[in-house]
Amino acid sequence: MAVYKAPLRDMQFVLKELIGLEQLQKLPGGEELSEDLIDAVMIEAAKLTENIMFPLNASGDEEGCTWNNGEVRTPKGFKEAYQAFVEGGWSALALAPEYGGQGMPEIVSMFMEEMMCAANVSFSLYPGLTRGAALLLLTHGSQELKQRFLDPLVKGTWTGTMCLTEAHCGTDLGLLRTKAMPQKDGTYRLTGTKIFISSGEHDLTDNIIHFVIARTPEGPPGIRGISLFLVPKFIVHQDGSIGERNGVKCTSIEHKMGIKASSTCVMTFEEAEGYLIGDLYKGVTNMFTMMNSERVAVGNQGLGVGEASYQNAVAYARERLQGRSLSGIKCPDKPADPIIWHPDVRRMLLTMKALNEGNRMLASWVAFHLDLAHRGTNEEEKKAADDFVQLMTPIVKAYLTDCGVDITNLGLQVFGGHGYIRDYGMEQYVRDARIAQIYEGTNGVQSLDLAGRKMPAHMGRYLRPFFHLVSQFIEDQQQDKSLQEFIDPLAKAFGRLQQATLTIAQKGIKAPDEAGAASTDYLKMFGLVASAYLWVRAVLVARQKTESNEKVFYEGKIATARFFMQKLLPQTSSLNASIMAGAHPLMDIPQEAFGPF
Amino acid sequence: MAVYKAPLRDMQFVLKELIGLEQLQKLPGGEELSEDLIDAVMIEAAKLTENIMFPLNASGDEEGCTWNNGEVRTPKGFKEAYQAFVEGGWSALALAPEYGGQGMPEIVSMFMEEMMCAANVSFSLYPGLTRGAALLLLTHGSQELKQRFLDPLVKGTWTGTMCLTEAHCGTDLGLLRTKAMPQKDGTYRLTGTKIFISSGEHDLTDNIIHFVIARTPEGPPGIRGISLFLVPKFIVHQDGSIGERNGVKCTSIEHKMGIKASSTCVMTFEEAEGYLIGDLYKGVTNMFTMMNSERVAVGNQGLGVGEASYQNAVAYARERLQGRSLSGIKCPDKPADPIIWHPDVRRMLLTMKALNEGNRMLASWVAFHLDLAHRGTNEEEKKAADDFVQLMTPIVKAYLTDCGVDITNLGLQVFGGHGYIRDYGMEQYVRDARIAQIYEGTNGVQSLDLAGRKMPAHMGRYLRPFFHLVSQFIEDQQQDKSLQEFIDPLAKAFGRLQQATLTIAQKGIKAPDEAGAASTDYLKMFGLVASAYLWVRAVLVARQKTESNEKVFYEGKIATARFFMQKLLPQTSSLNASIMAGAHPLMDIPQEAFGPF
Repeated sequence: MAVYKAPLRDMQFVLKELIGLEQLQKLPGGEELSEDLIDAVMIEAAKLTENIMFPLNASGDEEGCTWNNGEVRTPKGFKEAYQAFVEGGWSALALAPEYGGQGMPEIVSMFMEEMMCAANVSFSLYPGLTRGAALLLLTHGSQELKQRFLDPLVKGTWTGTMCLTEAHCGTDLGLLRTKAMPQKDGTYRLTGTKIFISSGEHDLTDNIIHFVIARTPEGPPGIRGISLFLVPKFIVHQDGSIGERNGVKCTSIEHKMGIKASSTCVMTFEEAEGYLIGDLYKGVTNMFTMMNSERVAVGNQGLGVGEASYQNAVAYARERLQGRSLSGIKCPDKPADPIIWHPDVRRMLLTMKALNEGNRMLASWVAFHLDLAHRGTNEEEKKAADDFVQLMTPIVKAYLTDCGVDITNLGLQVFGGHGYIRDYGMEQYVRDARIAQIYEGTNGVQSLDLAGRKMPAHMGRYLRPFFHLVSQFIEDQQQDKSLQEFIDPLAKAFGRLQQATLTIAQKGIKAPDEAGAASTDYLKMFGLVASAYLWVRAVLVARQKTESNEKVFYEGKIATARFFMQKLLPQTSSLNASIMAGAHPLMDIPQEAFGPF
Repeated sequence: MAVYKAPLRDMQFVLKELIGLEQLQKLPGGEELSEDLIDAVMIEAAKLTENIMFPLNASGDEEGCTWNNGEVRTPKGFKEAYQAFVEGGWSALALAPEYGGQGMPEIVSMFMEEMMCAANVSFSLYPGLTRGAALLLLTHGSQELKQRFLDPLVKGTWTGTMCLTEAHCGTDLGLLRTKAMPQKDGTYRLTGTKIFISSGEHDLTDNIIHFVIARTPEGPPGIRGISLFLVPKFIVHQDGSIGERNGVKCTSIEHKMGIKASSTCVMTFEEAEGYLIGDLYKGVTNMFTMMNSERVAVGNQGLGVGEASYQNAVAYARERLQGRSLSGIKCPDKPADPIIWHPDVRRMLLTMKALNEGNRMLASWVAFHLDLAHRGTNEEEKKAADDFVQLMTPIVKAYLTDCGVDITNLGLQVFGGHGYIRDYGMEQYVRDARIAQIYEGTNGVQSLDLAGRKMPAHMGRYLRPFFHLVSQFIEDQQQDKSLQEFIDPLAKAFGRLQQATLTIAQKGIKAPDEAGAASTDYLKMFGLVASAYLWVRAVLVARQKTESNEKVFYEGKIATARFFMQKLLPQTSSLNASIMAGAHPLMDIPQEAFGPF
């Protein structure tokens, strides 16, 4: 019963009006990125996700994956949908044509990802990891490995996995035990058990390529003794043909709260043949090429599922007749007014809309910098763009996925009791969104990465350009009195972010717990301020077009910006107060006192 | 794998040290409420919930209810557990002995309810509604109906339901269509379909008594034409024996996000025999006797499930070894430190602890006033106590259940990936907690009841005593410098609540949308301030006992109060800013502008 239409108009707004397509056309290889071409790609992406992936969302959740003696069957229709995805050439949308990709901007690839997550987040996880796996192999793999494994990963005819977690080690990878024994022929034999492996086993492709971190016998203990290996499900001969089964198998799958159509596997390696990727003992660093790419992608899950939930909530709020508008009857010809007229329903809908659209701008802004970093010509600018991506990666991952859970819960609430039953699909969005706060590094880990690592790194090199940009923008726009209702709240919130940054930085030098205690509040504040900056930019664009024939769209944009500034951005005030309280309310309590009593 | 122990020590703290058992002993019939008696009852309640109900929680979720041709089978073990509940005389714990109850204070009954919800919220719904049904019959039923139906409802040998919602009408009961045709013998014949009926059909008891609102043919339209009827599943003869099947049947059950072991039924009435309860056309008002009781009970679901989630999260945080404490190694003999040493994990645990313990105080405070209202001797005091219950009912319902969802989500997050899989039970708490924000009036409806009805009613009669109490308390305690760290934040937050109240009241006179737009923020602010007041009272008690042999408990209490004041109460700041923004950011946007685009 759920609906989903790719929000193409808003995506165009972000790409063409906010970021500016001409910025991308200027980059090497960008000459061919005509507006027509990009529009055509986006329309095809919308068709694929709306017509092929979305119809399998509820049925996939209902049916789930099935494990049988090491084999995993995905839900009905997934195989055909995956086939359509591969045949359409969607697997490596943003990869350069020289490696077999489509050469699209990262921002377009991110829109495609948002659409897939909105349509069917479980489905999106099968190709989702493959993109990162191809990137990993491309960046760190030997020529010989690339020749054998890269092309099918790029095309998506094989899928990739990321094998890090073991039962006793998630965040703390230094504890991992999986062993890789070197062989005389230069290969390794891997033995150990990995858990929570998304797409570790499935029936969509002929081969699955695992990227596994493991410990060699001579290596130092902890994180410095870990190396990265490629372990195929089936051995691949030099000519690319598939050989015998390797010593890796799926020993069970997890039963989860959501993303039930995505296989989450326990993978057991028994003397599995593997090949070293990159240098020995650089496994964790190298794996982070894939991990960072996944973190941004996971942020898009929060956005995609949030958008899907919003669309359904708006449709329901327009249809559902219940009570009369407090300010007077709106539909006298009907037995009651649609609930969209009730202020508290509008609060929920506008919160969803403002967060989704703000988060789309934020994710796109980061994607744009990915393009600058990959395709730029000036080394200094490339470095600066990469720094920006580094800074924003934990924010996109954690802030967008925290928003995703809040948004889908609001969507469920708009439906009342009908939201809690399975028929309308609203409760599935909540369950599917919830995992994104956890995997690829919990949101607590992201916050610590921001407040404990990115913030102090290189004497503030990551933060300074962002602070400079926003501060300059505020200064430039402050003269404009008609913009005051937007600039003033931004300036106030930005001031809080500056104050919080200074405080954490100063306290953190003496007491590392201070950054840890402030980190979650700080990341949320950062996300809100970055979005607020983009909302003002959106207003600058929209207010020039309120006389166009898309008046409703542009006026809605400005009204949503106003809602964000007045009703959501003030959260920075209490976040700041909580940060200023410091670590002692958390740390000065003996662990016995946690009870329970 | 989940654990649950009834938090008896904290309950004793609230009852004996915060509220004061002597307050209850002073009331008529209270002489016999010795400390020993109450302790014994609480210990038995703990045993029943921990040993009988809790072990069925995960299996009940897994199995769910089964519908077959109008019959509903509850999960394995539920029948025996219900039998134990009835045989133990738990069904009417707080009802006066003259009606067959146990005469326990409401506060003890509420503790029992918390334990049941913590142990097995699905199970708790079968007896849960029966208590309210008995109260409804007792208050509004004729002597003849009481004689036939009251005793089995009080004993719990039959269960009760509340039949309000129809497919097209939830909040807006004025739209309801179920018809009640008067018969010559004074009975009625009911025809119509009710949905979302908890415990509408099950296999736990021999009879089920439905309390149904419906429309008689001559009545005025809208809410003023609705009357309340008792409709038994089986006709009951004058001598109390069970006769033939009545014309009401369960035509299907819902598949839901959670509370899967609770049957949520579509009930179809076809000329079902029913008996008028109370006056004609007073159905909705009379039904609210049951509804208000249920609203407080639903608040306890948020608290109970939150407590269960907390206990598991603390246990896991002590066991799970991952990473090293930022301020130095805590367990050098282990490969890593327990995650309870990480500041961000403490943030999650302390948020859970502070909200649960604050909410337990809040619910108990209201329960204490229920006793005052029911058993008091002075009419003026009884009225005042009832006013307080009226004021706090929407807050207990909405604030506690909003907290319940936040808390259970934090509990899941503490477990990381292990929280998302079904094995540990953490994700079930989230799913089970989620319904409580919806049923018995969505939390949006509760907020509107507070800000739009209770606040302006009788020129502020409901609010004034609360404001006076807190304001006097602050004045009395402000001299005490050692209390400053607690009183100052309370005073600040209370000032915001006063400001918000004034603003909403003033704006609301001219524009009713203003109260609606502010309502959710206002209710949360009210809940936070009321808890803050109780937290300071808890500190006053605890700081006199830090030299006792329960030093850890009392110092933990003070530290938790500090955390609440410094890290949670500042939320009142952003809530206030959002309230001050008024209704226009919500209402000045045409409904077309909601898109989606």
